[in-house]
Amino acid sequence: MKEIQGGITAPQGFLASGIYAGIKRTKKLDLAVIYSEKDAVASGVFTTNRIKAHPVILTQKQIKKGLIRAVIVNSGNANACAGIQGMTDAKEMVELTANALSIDKGMVCVASTGVIGEPLPMDRIRPAINTCVEGLSENGGKDAALAIMTTDTFPKEVAVREKLGGKVVTIGGIAKGSGMIYPRMATMLAFISTDVVIGKEVLNDIFKRAVDQSFNKITVDGDTSTNDMAICLANGMAGNKLMVGKDLKKFEEMLTYVCKSLSKMIVKDGEGATKLVEIRVKGAKDEEDAEKVGFAVANSSLVKTALFACDPNWGRIMAAIGYSGAYVREENVSITFGDINLVSNGAGLGKSVERKVIEVMNNREYTITIDLNAGDAEATILTTDLSYEYVKINVAYRS
Amino acid sequence: MKEIQGGITAPQGFLASGIYAGIKRTKKLDLAVIYSEKDAVASGVFTTNRIKAHPVILTQKQIKKGLIRAVIVNSGNANACAGIQGMTDAKEMVELTANALSIDKGMVCVASTGVIGEPLPMDRIRPAINTCVEGLSENGGKDAALAIMTTDTFPKEVAVREKLGGKVVTIGGIAKGSGMIYPRMATMLAFISTDVVIGKEVLNDIFKRAVDQSFNKITVDGDTSTNDMAICLANGMAGNKLMVGKDLKKFEEMLTYVCKSLSKMIVKDGEGATKLVEIRVKGAKDEEDAEKVGFAVANSSLVKTALFACDPNWGRIMAAIGYSGAYVREENVSITFGDINLVSNGAGLGKSVERKVIEVMNNREYTITIDLNAGDAEATILTTDLSYEYVKINVAYRS
Repeated sequence: MKEIQGGITAPQGFLASGIYAGIKRTKKLDLAVIYSEKDAVASGVFTTNRIKAHPVILTQKQIKKGLIRAVIVNSGNANACAGIQGMTDAKEMVELTANALSIDKGMVCVASTGVIGEPLPMDRIRPAINTCVEGLSENGGKDAALAIMTTDTFPKEVAVREKLGGKVVTIGGIAKGSGMIYPRMATMLAFISTDVVIGKEVLNDIFKRAVDQSFNKITVDGDTSTNDMAICLANGMAGNKLMVGKDLKKFEEMLTYVCKSLSKMIVKDGEGATKLVEIRVKGAKDEEDAEKVGFAVANSSLVKTALFACDPNWGRIMAAIGYSGAYVREENVSITFGDINLVSNGAGLGKSVERKVIEVMNNREYTITIDLNAGDAEATILTTDLSYEYVKINVAYRS
Repeated sequence: MKEIQGGITAPQGFLASGIYAGIKRTKKLDLAVIYSEKDAVASGVFTTNRIKAHPVILTQKQIKKGLIRAVIVNSGNANACAGIQGMTDAKEMVELTANALSIDKGMVCVASTGVIGEPLPMDRIRPAINTCVEGLSENGGKDAALAIMTTDTFPKEVAVREKLGGKVVTIGGIAKGSGMIYPRMATMLAFISTDVVIGKEVLNDIFKRAVDQSFNKITVDGDTSTNDMAICLANGMAGNKLMVGKDLKKFEEMLTYVCKSLSKMIVKDGEGATKLVEIRVKGAKDEEDAEKVGFAVANSSLVKTALFACDPNWGRIMAAIGYSGAYVREENVSITFGDINLVSNGAGLGKSVERKVIEVMNNREYTITIDLNAGDAEATILTTDLSYEYVKINVAYRS
């Protein structure tokens, strides 16, 4: 896939902006606007947490209602668990953005990320929305990527471009992590823009599958937040013919690529992470079993501290496989680090093999393949290690 | 409840012993024998991990078959995922213990705890079993408690004594934690002895309920091991009449007390724990929901780092409640630390309340009460914080 520069502003007709509004104490960018010059078909995937932040509830409604022109996002405050005031504030952010852009308030989505349970500093956000809209530009993608960060250590953006239906089609995206990353929308936000011409139902189908293959297959600490959303806007400015067959497949590949790239960046930037480890589960009875095993291993604090320590303590992996709830027979399990087979038929292959595995574990990125030898289903989960730094970051988060 | 000294050897007719057999590199006690002078009715609760260590499988069979006279336990090596050799070794430990005690080999239970995936050093264990049996004594409870420890920092023992059915009845117990503590039998071993006269089925019922109220309500890191078991032996030497009504109820209270005391010690000694926090969930729709909420909060890495930091970051608690899967309405939730109400109707009560909550959080032990206001069901889960020390211990475990 051919990556290009520009992130969320790479597709035609998308502008973005990111400024410091005074929400974060650190004086880093904390307010972003993403704007499409033409009405965009929109699709969204939202947190499954039963306690949803008001911006999530509001944006779900907006996307259901119809076309979208803009997204207003703040970091530094999640506007979650803030009582009725939370909905009032979310609505006001939408209205102020719509006014500043002279568009219908039904066409604006809103997202917030940061500390839960504190009221938004609306006195600072109100004037900042105008400033942020004034700053909209074709080169504003990076600032927007910066302005949605919380404990992220680097901005996350990507864009790809291909010829589809006789026209050049572009997809761009930005995302933020990085604690509470867990499938089914953890503390993460992702905004995807594209100039493709596409119907809403088709976009919904494709976007859900792309999210399922990417943002729903990553984990940092197993927590799931109140604020997550992934939104895809398609403004049709590429002017392609409605895609069918091969072209539609190609578009799905592009969108999946963008989502996977952003997810990988999120895990890589997992709080305190020193490793990016792909847990590939093969030979499961069915896909559900494969995912259960993948997430049990990927979320085990004991496995994750062993990854941090570069310790081939495969017993912890076996224990996690065993309690995952998946069908498993110990004597059929094999575990391979990189291309070094460490466990075969449920038994370790000895100290000399472990020494080779340690070499693999010294890499920043590698794959652990678990073969259950119980069927044909597979799943791949991305995870990180658990380091001192993780504890440190989360101890210090509010202080 | 009246606690007495003596632990597992406090009841009549129980002897114990703990020695250094050469399994641990640290030269600490690592082999224990518990012995009953008379045949004991036995009940056991075992790990639900699908990958079970061979000692677990063997002991399950022994208890099912009939009466028990002795338990042989080693620490330092879990004899799990050790291939077919694992069962051979577990059987040999049972046989050697039976021979040394001149009892039937069907009457010996075996348990192992420690590193997974390495063969037991049987050349060192064989001669040590004789030495350990020779050391059996009425005062051996403490040594046995020491010999079953792995990363535990203190031995865990308790005993209680009451008059039941006209006779003095005693229950004693020892246990070990302390990583991978999770309900439904995590990396923990517990051995309970009593001189009560009781039928096997009645003991099974009561012991299962006691375990469910204690060992199944604790969590340190959410992992569940391959080796856990809790065993209760009743040798009838108190000579009481078969208990009914009030006496039976009293006995259940005693047994539950012993199990709860040991569980509390296990959590208190959780790896790197600096806090012992009781998560009390009230007002749930049903007990399952109450447990879901309790465990989601108790296992959240983000909540646990906040406990370590004495940070009243209740947003993390709300997020965990939300993703627990339980029925919950945000606007009905209240959260109280000690007796300081911090969240009411889903909203925080402000900074001045938070300052009082920090005082509560500075204690080594306290309770967090979560009221869902959705029903009458309750559950209480014991947990710990997540500290730098947890990472350190688990990084260093095998090195």
